[in-house]
Amino acid sequence: MIVTFEELQAFLAEQFPQGARYGTLEKLGDGWAEMKLDVDDEHLRPGGTVAGPAMMGLADVALYAALLGKIGLVPLAVTSNLNINFLRKPVAHSPIRARAKMLRIGRASGVGEVFVYSDGLGEPVAHATITYSIPAKR
Amino acid sequence: MIVTFEELQAFLAEQFPQGARYGTLEKLGDGWAEMKLDVDDEHLRPGGTVAGPAMMGLADVALYAALLGKIGLVPLAVTSNLNINFLRKPVAHSPIRARAKMLRIGRASGVGEVFVYSDGLGEPVAHATITYSIPAKR
Amino acid sequence: MIVTFEELQAFLAEQFPQGARYGTLEKLGDGWAEMKLDVDDEHLRPGGTVAGPAMMGLADVALYAALLGKIGLVPLAVTSNLNINFLRKPVAHSPIRARAKMLRIGRASGVGEVFVYSDGLGEPVAHATITYSIPAKR
Amino acid sequence: MIVTFEELQAFLAEQFPQGARYGTLEKLGDGWAEMKLDVDDEHLRPGGTVAGPAMMGLADVALYAALLGKIGLVPLAVTSNLNINFLRKPVAHSPIRARAKMLRIGRASGVGEVFVYSDGLGEPVAHATITYSIPAKR
Repeated sequence: MIVTFEELQAFLAEQFPQGARYGTLEKLGDGWAEMKLDVDDEHLRPGGTVAGPAMMGLADVALYAALLGKIGLVPLAVTSNLNINFLRKPVAHSPIRARAKMLRIGRASGVGEVFVYSDGLGEPVAHATITYSIPAKR
Repeated sequence: MIVTFEELQAFLAEQFPQGARYGTLEKLGDGWAEMKLDVDDEHLRPGGTVAGPAMMGLADVALYAALLGKIGLVPLAVTSNLNINFLRKPVAHSPIRARAKMLRIGRASGVGEVFVYSDGLGEPVAHATITYSIPAKR
Repeated sequence: MIVTFEELQAFLAEQFPQGARYGTLEKLGDGWAEMKLDVDDEHLRPGGTVAGPAMMGLADVALYAALLGKIGLVPLAVTSNLNINFLRKPVAHSPIRARAKMLRIGRASGVGEVFVYSDGLGEPVAHATITYSIPAKR
Repeated sequence: MIVTFEELQAFLAEQFPQGARYGTLEKLGDGWAEMKLDVDDEHLRPGGTVAGPAMMGLADVALYAALLGKIGLVPLAVTSNLNINFLRKPVAHSPIRARAKMLRIGRASGVGEVFVYSDGLGEPVAHATITYSIPAKR
């Protein structure tokens, strides 16, 4: 891990000026990160459940955090592929949490997986695998 | 097609009270739909490009529209799997458009594909395949 | 787990009369299974590495085994979606092993993930998420 | 297109010495290719339907052909991600055909989509999106 929790937190705040809409960094480890999203009305969809894009966005930024913790603060790393399975209905107004872990970091790309949890449920509500493209010169 | 453009437009407006944040319905055909998203600052990410979740959200709702046009206004159809490849950088402040087409509609699920375009670019900026779970009783 | 190791082994042998080409069952637990494939020349591709389809086939049948261990010997459960990321080059003539685990088993479908390992390497060579469609009457 | 049909055919025959098990090249165009697989007993699975790995293998090699037709005969291009949706049951003893088309070819990777058809059915039996990693020096 070549980036500290505080450095990454500051970087994400600067990079995502929309504020906490994509979630906040909770933990950072060697190749993994956890982020939390406080679900409010803008994240809900019909039936009172958390909207898919809110979970996808949280998963995406959580694994991005896990990657940057390993390779440094490279703003130009971009998502190239995201695959997500929605497993269970989240609790409507409960926070959701993404636990993201890199599976491989190569020269030009990185791949990892993310489990998304809903506070109050033991089993995950979604699982994603995501690939980032890493720019050549960094 | 058992739902009209106007019926679907009204249904989406009611179901997604956040307004046009996920895009607006532009066209509806037999098993396909087109939606448009006017990109503003909240959809941008570092580097001035359109954020992945904005494209994922638009793709998801566009194929949901294409599905509902065929099976009727079933609010409980939910996304079960989404796979997206990001192909090119969209034009930063240009609208994005999703062209969604169902590939199969079965008893319990439906699968389709979506191309996302950025106004000003000929080639697609993203391609998604999405599966919806359709509730048993409808 | 409502099926024993021996019952599942016999079922797979009967269902896949091509023999061990898709691998052999090594372990079976509550919602998980391990299968092994002895790599021979027919599984190799240019460069002496294990062909992608050999890894996909092993992952697919291993999670199928994990699913059947939970729901019973339902021959009509079929794969509806498979997503695989190839992470590292396997050792050319080493056996590969798939560790498969169900993430959710619902009424009409089941989802799980599989890590594929190559004997001699600590890190996984591939990761897959797979969805099966489960027939209505069983 | 910088490779001819005959050159690519010869290359595939050499690279895949298992012979026609993965299919034969039928057509080659600018960024697209078609391959055919004569389904025999070794490709079938329980219920008399074509096995998933046979369709995955054909899709994979067809898009590989479409890519090589554009970038030249680079044996080290390898599949990094494959996502496939199985849409319909193929006709049991009918040939299957893959129509593969590149969506983007970049410096370090290429992405495309493949529709798989079963002779005798008008609608596709499977749809795949596949990413290849292209080696740096070529």
